[in-house]
Amino acid sequence: MAFLIIAPGRDTRALEAELRRLEPGLDLRVWPQLGDAAAIRFALAWNAPAGVFGDLPALCTVASLGAGVDALVDRPDLPETVPVTRLAGPRLAADLAAYLVAMTVDWWKRLDEQRHDRSWRPRPPRPAPRIGLLGLGRMGRRAAQAFRSLDLEVAGWNRSGRADDGLPVECGDDGLVRLAGRSDVLINLLPLTAATRGIIDARLLAALPADSLLINVGRGAHVIEHDLLAALDAGRPGRAVLDVFETEPLPDDHPFRRHPDVVVTPHVAALTDPREAAELALAQWRCVERGAPPPDAVDRVRGY
Amino acid sequence: MAFLIIAPGRDTRALEAELRRLEPGLDLRVWPQLGDAAAIRFALAWNAPAGVFGDLPALCTVASLGAGVDALVDRPDLPETVPVTRLAGPRLAADLAAYLVAMTVDWWKRLDEQRHDRSWRPRPPRPAPRIGLLGLGRMGRRAAQAFRSLDLEVAGWNRSGRADDGLPVECGDDGLVRLAGRSDVLINLLPLTAATRGIIDARLLAALPADSLLINVGRGAHVIEHDLLAALDAGRPGRAVLDVFETEPLPDDHPFRRHPDVVVTPHVAALTDPREAAELALAQWRCVERGAPPPDAVDRVRGY
Repeated sequence: MAFLIIAPGRDTRALEAELRRLEPGLDLRVWPQLGDAAAIRFALAWNAPAGVFGDLPALCTVASLGAGVDALVDRPDLPETVPVTRLAGPRLAADLAAYLVAMTVDWWKRLDEQRHDRSWRPRPPRPAPRIGLLGLGRMGRRAAQAFRSLDLEVAGWNRSGRADDGLPVECGDDGLVRLAGRSDVLINLLPLTAATRGIIDARLLAALPADSLLINVGRGAHVIEHDLLAALDAGRPGRAVLDVFETEPLPDDHPFRRHPDVVVTPHVAALTDPREAAELALAQWRCVERGAPPPDAVDRVRGY
Repeated sequence: MAFLIIAPGRDTRALEAELRRLEPGLDLRVWPQLGDAAAIRFALAWNAPAGVFGDLPALCTVASLGAGVDALVDRPDLPETVPVTRLAGPRLAADLAAYLVAMTVDWWKRLDEQRHDRSWRPRPPRPAPRIGLLGLGRMGRRAAQAFRSLDLEVAGWNRSGRADDGLPVECGDDGLVRLAGRSDVLINLLPLTAATRGIIDARLLAALPADSLLINVGRGAHVIEHDLLAALDAGRPGRAVLDVFETEPLPDDHPFRRHPDVVVTPHVAALTDPREAAELALAQWRCVERGAPPPDAVDRVRGY
């Protein structure tokens, strides 16, 4: 049986090397060189072209090369019976937490202004911020832990309203607005599903405290861009840090590029570590090889 | 008995308000309005003018309004029998850890370059850095905890070569060079004493890995400035993040200001929180009031 990587335009050489190092006998194929397609049982996918899975009759599992699975769960070329998995390990979660802490502290302590000032003008920090996390899966829980290690107050929002680590958790539409109201830093880590698309809208943003920070590391489609631009002009939030966008690459002439209160990074908050990705993918691959269900499969109907 | 604040040029109104709120009957004086100097038993000092303690015959304790005590321990106007204390609580330690994590992640993930680029050009992050901490007191241990919460490898250096939380620790001159050799990010948190003055010199810097980061949040006098400038030009470290300087404010025409690999912040890494400082100072004050030795007194001969 063969293992396929489908990641058009992405440099996957380090990942391929790790896979070969960890599993020397692996029959590894890299799209578009499929070889005998009927032998392909496992695919690791990122930006997979439409229809490509239709050419793989023996496919047993598709793993997303990244934390999100929204591009895979409802594809018409992927039969409902094929499990979709994620490769979201502790390294990826820690990487994302590092980005979130750095962007939060930069805003809290006004570091960017001060480091780029050629004169000595100390600025007082903002008060220690209360952190609100939309989404408390692996990524959210790890971020909560990192913020708590800095003595910051953390609360969250998820579908169940429950968390297993003593975190205050809201749920539902009203809970969303309540969490926003008590979050100096509101961070979106939600999976993109029908229920979360456009969740960061005028109503949510209006509930934020004045001089607050919004960070989006979920998906661009979680944010109603027009609502966010209007909200920034109204001062809630005071700053938006955005790593993901409806259209990527973000066009150079997009209003986010010119807005003084928007910080743009080019989808780099958490980058897949080739070693971790190879280890997780091979653990799933071995399950498929022996006919067992792969770990980390998502609920394709729920969307995460 | 009276409580004196000596902090010329510093706005201490928030601190005074906290002290009065927590201890309504406090006989609080603010230099230079001493009133009856013989009633003053406790002083909270920052940049205290030379000779000022000579005017306070009943002084029982001097607390440093900050984490460092180097400006107090060997003053000729302060009798050896007067304890010197610090106000370094968990809030201050967490604040400093936040700065260190933010500056480390900024370098690790090249965030500054990417957020100020108007085009979409994702940069690969550096490999996950190994952190080296010079100094493992309250501040260092807290920083270690914050870095470990991001799955980063941490080691340290102190006088004893011991730490109580399982951290690998070096000591001695050779240990210093060994730690530098395995630190992608070397962070100075040492107290300034005769033994640590100028500790960051050409020998230490030459031991750093190529493309490493030096962060100094100790004191300016820990660093031989000329050695650091030469070391930066030789690429070890690749970047220096400096929050403290021999001369503060750092002159606008200082070479650090113009160097492309130096990040300067104006001594803001950890700012005293008025509430925490008031609580800690009053706990010390109450000991003095009942004739007990104050907590958090330093060894004035050792210097920390």
